[in-house]
This record gives sequence, C-alpha cells and structure tokens, in this order.
Amino acid sequence: MSDYSMPVSIFDPSKRPELVLVGAGIGDPELLTLKGLKALQEADAVLYDALVDEALLQHAPADAIRLFVGKRRGKKSHTQEEINALIVDCAHAFGKVVRLKGGDPFVFGRGMEELHYAREHGLEVDYIPGVSSAIAGPGLAGIAVTLRGASRGFWVMTATTDTGELNPEIFEVARTNATAVILMGLAKLPEIAEAYARSGKSELPVAIVQNASTPRQRTLTGRVSDIAEKALLSGIGSPAVIIVGEVVDHRLRKQRTSLQETNPEGQFT
Amino acid sequence: MSDYSMPVSIFDPSKRPELVLVGAGIGDPELLTLKGLKALQEADAVLYDALVDEALLQHAPADAIRLFVGKRRGKKSHTQEEINALIVDCAHAFGKVVRLKGGDPFVFGRGMEELHYAREHGLEVDYIPGVSSAIAGPGLAGIAVTLRGASRGFWVMTATTDTGELNPEIFEVARTNATAVILMGLAKLPEIAEAYARSGKSELPVAIVQNASTPRQRTLTGRVSDIAEKALLSGIGSPAVIIVGEVVDHRLRKQRTSLQETNPEGQFT
Repeated sequence: MSDYSMPVSIFDPSKRPELVLVGAGIGDPELLTLKGLKALQEADAVLYDALVDEALLQHAPADAIRLFVGKRRGKKSHTQEEINALIVDCAHAFGKVVRLKGGDPFVFGRGMEELHYAREHGLEVDYIPGVSSAIAGPGLAGIAVTLRGASRGFWVMTATTDTGELNPEIFEVARTNATAVILMGLAKLPEIAEAYARSGKSELPVAIVQNASTPRQRTLTGRVSDIAEKALLSGIGSPAVIIVGEVVDHRLRKQRTSLQETNPEGQFT
Repeated sequence: MSDYSMPVSIFDPSKRPELVLVGAGIGDPELLTLKGLKALQEADAVLYDALVDEALLQHAPADAIRLFVGKRRGKKSHTQEEINALIVDCAHAFGKVVRLKGGDPFVFGRGMEELHYAREHGLEVDYIPGVSSAIAGPGLAGIAVTLRGASRGFWVMTATTDTGELNPEIFEVARTNATAVILMGLAKLPEIAEAYARSGKSELPVAIVQNASTPRQRTLTGRVSDIAEKALLSGIGSPAVIIVGEVVDHRLRKQRTSLQETNPEGQFT
C-alpha cells in the first residue's frame, strides 16, 4: 500500500503494535507535555509533521525509526492513505509508533482518522493532547480568546473547505459576537474581511500571528477595513492564526522572551 | 488591599517582581508542559486554583510559598480583586510568582485580567499556554472537535453569562453546523437541549465528559432529545465538558488507560 522501504530485519514479534497520537504543541519544543515526552522516550518509531520542531526527535531513543511525513515547500511527502498504512506497518514491525503532530492532533489534524484506521488494523491506540495554536497562538501574542466584557466564547475554523472554497462558516461567525480564530487563512484574508464588512463590522479589530512561540513570531494588527492591505504590505506569511474580535483591542503588549515583539522597526504593532 | 498575612521577613530586594501565568493542563499532572515545569521549578511563590492537581506543587522549590486561591465546595476562597493584589504583593515580597491555572489561562480563566493588573503594578509578566479542557476534554473521551465530513470548526463557550443567565450564544451555535463545546454547562443542560430542539436538531448527538484525564473520567452520550434526562439519571456532575455535534457519532471507544471507560456497568456509553 505504500512505497517506502522497511528494515524488516529488526522485526520484533514480542512488541505489541501500538499507535500513540501525540500533540507536539506549537513551535517552541518546550510546549510539549510531560506525558508526550514520556511517550517519545518509549517510541520505537516516530512519524512527524512539518510543523513539529525536530529538536523534539532527540527525546526518542537513538535506535527509534524517524520518518518525516509532512509537507515541504507546500508539497505533501505522503498522502493520508500512505500515512495510515505507514503507521500500521511500522507498528507491526517495530511496536510503539508515536505520531507527532503540531498543536493538538484533534484540531484539523486528521488525527481521529489515523486512530480509527489503526484500530481497525489491530493496533492499540492512545491520544495525548497538546497545546493548540488556536488558543496559544493568540495567547502568545498577548490576546486572550475569551475576556470578560469582550467575548463569551471563541469559534475556531479553517478558512477553506476541503475543495478550497471559502468556508461558509466565515459568514456565520461574522454575524455573531464570538471571537473568530481562523487557521490556515492568510490566502483568504480579503474574503474574510469582506464577510465581516458585509455584517457592518469594518472597524472590528483583527490580529495575525505568524510563527507563534518561535523566535520568528510576528504579530500584525489592524481593522477589518485595512487588515488585508496591511498584511500584503507587511509580507506576513504562513503559518499564521487570524483573530477577529474585540479581544484584540485588549491585547497585552509584551516585554519578555516568549511574548516578545520581534520587529523593532514597529512594522508589526 | 487584601487580608492575608505575609511573612515579610523573607523579603528579598534583589528579586525582580514577576508574574508567570502557567496553564496547568487538565486533571492529569503529566499534561503540564516542559516550559510550565521549568517555571514551577524556579517559582518563589505559587498561587493555584481548584482544578489544579496538587501533585504539580511538588515541582516548586521546597521553600516556595504555596497559596490556594480557588473555589472549595462552590465557595470562592478569594475574590478576583484579592487574587490580583496577592499576586502583586507576593511578587514584590518574594520575586517570581507562578499563577497556576487549570487548562489554558486565557480560556475563561480571567488570566488576561491578572496580567494587565500585574503589569500596571510594575511586574514583568509572561504566559505559558496549557492543554485546554475545551479540546482535550472531548479528545480524551475519543471525540475530535473537528473531523472531515462532520465538522469544519468548533465553538467554545460557557453556558451562562456573568449574571447567571443562559448565554445567548447557545441559541446561535444551535443554528450552525459548528461543534459546540460548552464549559461549565451541566446546570443549564435542559435549556441547551431546548435551544437545539428549537433549531430542529433533536437527534443531534451529545456527549458529556466529566473529570477528563483523571481516573474518575466518565463519559455519557445521548441525543439532544434525551441527554438532559440521561444526565439526571446518571448522576454525572461537574467539572464537565458538553459536546454537541455530529463528531460525537464518530467517537472512538477506548481501550487504554488515558482513554478508558470507567463505568464497566455500561451506564456511561
């Protein structure tokens, strides 16, 4: 089912085939949980994605298999079907497979699909949650997704449907008072702003947080009316989280390392 | 400003007054991040809430101050104003204050209010995100908040407003296809179900996850039409996360410790 080569000589029938889906947290490798660390330390094989810091792989035993299965330069190294098959084959060949995913595996990560497939193919399965960019991305830019007086809740979504169209829920969230947290949305920013403008919310504040928690973290703020142009001029890019809502106006500016502004010229405000 | 006694004799003017807001994760103390662990290990004082496992306090130095500032038996030990003042006083007296909150501090945690107050009173501030019950609560019960074909996003909210009324966003989410993740909502379960029924969604699946990630984790599932009665009969209680949406039907049943069913009689399904 998949076209990789497997060092079958190390096959060990005493090992129980097992998949542990682990949330790696975002960017900063210290945002891994203690439980995730333990799982990595016991791994026989680690399959990891593009948004996972490779420093995390050092926690796995020296003889554990390490396989990159993410996207590079926008191109997938493996299809989802290939990843599913790899997980099952690795578990049968080596034992404990840690599937390391950026953020939390159940937030747009296709983690549940991998667990179901693994279970159907005889693996024991487990899940260790992670710090999600949906909450920590805004947070590390000084923006709380909920705030008394400003937000009673937050709605997390991607900007596109599976077929690349604008997610129709963008129009719905624009009609509510929920904080919108939009992942993988930069390419659709003009359409997102247009949806909010149609709901009469041109002055609502917007923030874009790129590379949250890493030394390359940048934050750009604006209004629905000007954020698309500002984003274009600033050159801000992916991976990024877009936050739309009053909570952006209550942003806490940073002094410390993990909360630092990284653009001293003030282009990002 | 606050009515606690402070051992001022250990005042150390060389210490920089500092607040680090740390997300403790949910329940299981191993869901703390490596970064949160480091902050605890360097703490001069730890102020912690009710949903924080006291095992986490062992990570702090033996001579660090430990102060419980949460709710016990539904009663607050301190008002928010008292907690704010305690943070500032402790930081000036001892140095590095770690404010340990269940889940992530920016999800209904009033964490941002504490950071703003601390900053205004001369403290350096930092934030270390945590695993949130909004995502990990469903996840540890085998429910992914997003799933291809079933959910394009999830909307996290509390069930009540500051004044104890039903959050009007409950009616809004009931009209959308978003997965609803409702925190602190058990007492309002009949009203939540009624809101969904009014939107013609009586057959939509619902799950309630109590004490997620702890040995006392229990999961109850049903439909909008019967969940309130089932919850009453089962005796399920707080703390709990309510999930409403198609994703509940794609739930992965558990085999392993962290994903285990804890009611072998099958009352919880």
